[in-house]
Amino acid sequence: MQRIDAGRLLSDLRALRGIGAQGRGVVRPAFSAADMQARRWLKTRFEEAGLEATIDGAGNVFGRSRNPGRALLLGSHSDTQPTGGWLDGALGVIYALEVVRALEGLAVDAVSFQDEESRFLGCLGSRSLIGALSPEMEQGAKDSDGVALADALRGAGLADAPRLRLDPGRYAGFVEAHIEQGPHLEQAGRRIGVVTDIVGLRGFRFVFRGQQNHAGTTMMASRRDASAALYELAYRINREFPAAAAERSVWTMGRVRIEPNATSIVPGYAELDLQFRDASQAPLDGFEAIVARLVAEVNARGGVRIEAVRARAPIAPTRMDAGLRVHLEAAAERHAPGSWQRMPSGAFHDAGILSARLPCAMLFIPSIGGVSHDFAEDSRDEDIVLGCEVLADAAAAILATAQ
Amino acid sequence: MQRIDAGRLLSDLRALRGIGAQGRGVVRPAFSAADMQARRWLKTRFEEAGLEATIDGAGNVFGRSRNPGRALLLGSHSDTQPTGGWLDGALGVIYALEVVRALEGLAVDAVSFQDEESRFLGCLGSRSLIGALSPEMEQGAKDSDGVALADALRGAGLADAPRLRLDPGRYAGFVEAHIEQGPHLEQAGRRIGVVTDIVGLRGFRFVFRGQQNHAGTTMMASRRDASAALYELAYRINREFPAAAAERSVWTMGRVRIEPNATSIVPGYAELDLQFRDASQAPLDGFEAIVARLVAEVNARGGVRIEAVRARAPIAPTRMDAGLRVHLEAAAERHAPGSWQRMPSGAFHDAGILSARLPCAMLFIPSIGGVSHDFAEDSRDEDIVLGCEVLADAAAAILATAQ
Repeated sequence: MQRIDAGRLLSDLRALRGIGAQGRGVVRPAFSAADMQARRWLKTRFEEAGLEATIDGAGNVFGRSRNPGRALLLGSHSDTQPTGGWLDGALGVIYALEVVRALEGLAVDAVSFQDEESRFLGCLGSRSLIGALSPEMEQGAKDSDGVALADALRGAGLADAPRLRLDPGRYAGFVEAHIEQGPHLEQAGRRIGVVTDIVGLRGFRFVFRGQQNHAGTTMMASRRDASAALYELAYRINREFPAAAAERSVWTMGRVRIEPNATSIVPGYAELDLQFRDASQAPLDGFEAIVARLVAEVNARGGVRIEAVRARAPIAPTRMDAGLRVHLEAAAERHAPGSWQRMPSGAFHDAGILSARLPCAMLFIPSIGGVSHDFAEDSRDEDIVLGCEVLADAAAAILATAQ
Repeated sequence: MQRIDAGRLLSDLRALRGIGAQGRGVVRPAFSAADMQARRWLKTRFEEAGLEATIDGAGNVFGRSRNPGRALLLGSHSDTQPTGGWLDGALGVIYALEVVRALEGLAVDAVSFQDEESRFLGCLGSRSLIGALSPEMEQGAKDSDGVALADALRGAGLADAPRLRLDPGRYAGFVEAHIEQGPHLEQAGRRIGVVTDIVGLRGFRFVFRGQQNHAGTTMMASRRDASAALYELAYRINREFPAAAAERSVWTMGRVRIEPNATSIVPGYAELDLQFRDASQAPLDGFEAIVARLVAEVNARGGVRIEAVRARAPIAPTRMDAGLRVHLEAAAERHAPGSWQRMPSGAFHDAGILSARLPCAMLFIPSIGGVSHDFAEDSRDEDIVLGCEVLADAAAAILATAQ
C-alpha cells in the first residue's frame, strides 16, 4: 500500500482553511482576494512537490508532473460558496497534492479548478480546460452583485494569462475526491463512497415584470404585483414537481430578487432562480414541462408577465468510468473492508465536465450531519485520512495498469 | 379669494425636485445627504417667508409664524421612498410655504416631517412632535441595510438637537395637502379630493428559520427550506385574504430577504414583510386571524419554524375633522365647481398621526395614471396650482372662524 503522510495532509488542509477563514467557515468565492491568495499558495505547494505549476487564464492552478509515462489527473476546486465550508473542494485539491508527494516517481498531475461554485459560471475552470467555454457564455457572465467575469479576471491579473487546454492523450483519467455533502454515508455507517453517476442539473431564471406602485392606494384588482406572481409560481412548482420526481430528484429556489424590495411598495420587478437535478433525463424533462405549463398559465391571465430564461450551464447526468471505479472499489475494500458503498452524487462536480474528454471517477468521504455549503461543514479526521489512503492506493493501481 | 403666486409655487417645487434628482425621480430617503440638504434649503425658504425656522432633533423642519392669534399648521414631508417620485410629500410642504407667503399677516405655521416613508420608522417626525415616540421604538429602529436610527441621527448632526413638542392650544388644526397616489380622481374626472378617512395599517415581519444546506445532496424529504415555507405562506395569504377583505382592503408583501440567497443553496433563513390596510378595523382583525392560523399550520408541521413579529408602527383608521373639511369642501367648490369629491385615503400620512392631538384634514390632487412611489410619479401643473389655491382659500377661512 502507498504511504501518505497523515500529519502533512491535515496540516496543509488547515493552512488552506486559514485563507479566507470566517469563524469555522471559509469565504473564498472565485477570483476574490482570498481565492487568489489560496491559488498562489497552492501553486507554491505544487512546485515544492516537484510539479511544474501555473495559474492559467481561467484561474485554474495546474501542476504537471515531470515524471514519464501516461499520467493521472487528480484534483477538485479551491473556490468556495459565499458562506462556504472548509472541505468542499479543498479536500480533493489537498488530496491531489498529498498523492503527488506519496507517489514519488509516478506521473500524477494536480489541479484546482476555478469557480466550480458558480459565482460567475459553474465549473468555469474545468469548462475552460476542455475547451467547452464559448465567448457567448463568458460575455454575459456576472455575479449576483452585477460584477462581470471579464472585470473579475482583470482584477485578478489574469486577463492576459494563457489558458491551458487538456491533452486527453496524456491521461489515464481524472479522479476527484470530495466530501459527500449529504447524510447518506453517515446514516449507513459507511466511510467511503465510490460514485456511480453524477446527477444532471438544469435551471431557469424567472423574470417577473409588473408595475411598481403605492401599497396603499393601488386597489388589489388593478395591481400588477411582481412579488405575488413570484410567490404563486414558486409555491405551485413546489406542489407540482413531486408528481414528476424520481426517488432522488431535488429542486431548489434559493435566490430571489425583488425591486425595490420595500415594505410599502408594490414591486414592479422580481427574479426567481429554479434549479433541479436528477441522475436521469426523464424527471428533468418532466420538470421542464411543468414549468412551461405554469408560466403559460400565469402569462395567459395578463397582469404580471413572466419570462423563463434557461440557466446558462445545464449539465447532463454523467456515468463514472467503470475501469477507474474498479480500482477505487478495490482500494476502498482493502482500506475499509465492508465499510464502503457505491452511490450517485447529488452534487455536481468538475468530474462531470471532464468526463466529456477523459474517463472520470469520484471518491466520497462522509460529511458530519450531511451539512455542506455552510460554515458548519465538517468531516472526521480519521475519514479525511482514510479517503486519501484509498485515493493514493487506487491512483498507483490505475497508473500501473495504464502504462 | 386668496392670491397665490403660481410661478413661484412651481419654481420652488422644481428647485426641491433638483435635490436628490435621479432621472425623472427623486432619491431622498430620510437623513440621507440629499434629504438633509433639502431640509436646510427648506429652512432658508421658511425664514425668507418670515417664519422662525428650525430643524429639530427628529429632523423635522418647522417654521413658526410670528403673527398673532390662533394658528393653522400646514405641511407634509420632504423625505422620499428609496426610488421615489418628485411630488410625494414635497407638494404639501411647498404648498405650506406658498400659503404662508400668500396669507401675509395670518398665523400659518409650516412643517416638513421626517421619515414619513419608513426608512427607519414610519412617520418618525410627526410621532416625535406629538410625543408618541418611545425610546423602545427608537432603539430597535434600523433601515433595510441594517443602519441604526441613532447612527443616522448622529450622521445628520442631529444627535444633540432639541426635539420640538406640539402645543395643541396654539392651533385650529393641521391640514396636509398631498398627491392622491392612486387613480380614482383621474378616472372620475375630478381635480380635487377632500379626504374623509385615512385607512389603518398593520403589519408583520415573518422570520423563517430552517437549515441551510447543499441543493444537490439534501433530499427533499429531509429539507428545512426557509424559502419554500416563505413561498407557501405568501401564496396562501394572497389566496385567503380576499375572504376577509372589504371593498378597499389592500395587502402587500413587497420585501423579502433570503439567506444566503444563492441559486444552489437551500436557504436556512428568510424574512417576509406583510402590510395590510383598510379604513375600518374589522377586515384588519380578519387578516390577523388568517395570519395566525396559517403560521400555526406551518409550524405544526415541524421543519421550518415561522415567527410572526408585529410591525413596530401599526396605525388605526382615522376620521378627518368635520369642521375643517367644511372649509376645504367650500373652497374646492368655489375653485372647481362640480369637479371635486370626498374620498378615503388609501395611503397613510402624517395627518393620521397628528389627529391624535389636533383636528386634521387632507386635500388631494390627481396623480397621472395613479402612479406613485416610482420615478414616473407626476401631476398636471394646472392641478398643482389649483390645489394650492383651494388650500390657501380654505386656510384663510379656517383662521377667520378660529379667532
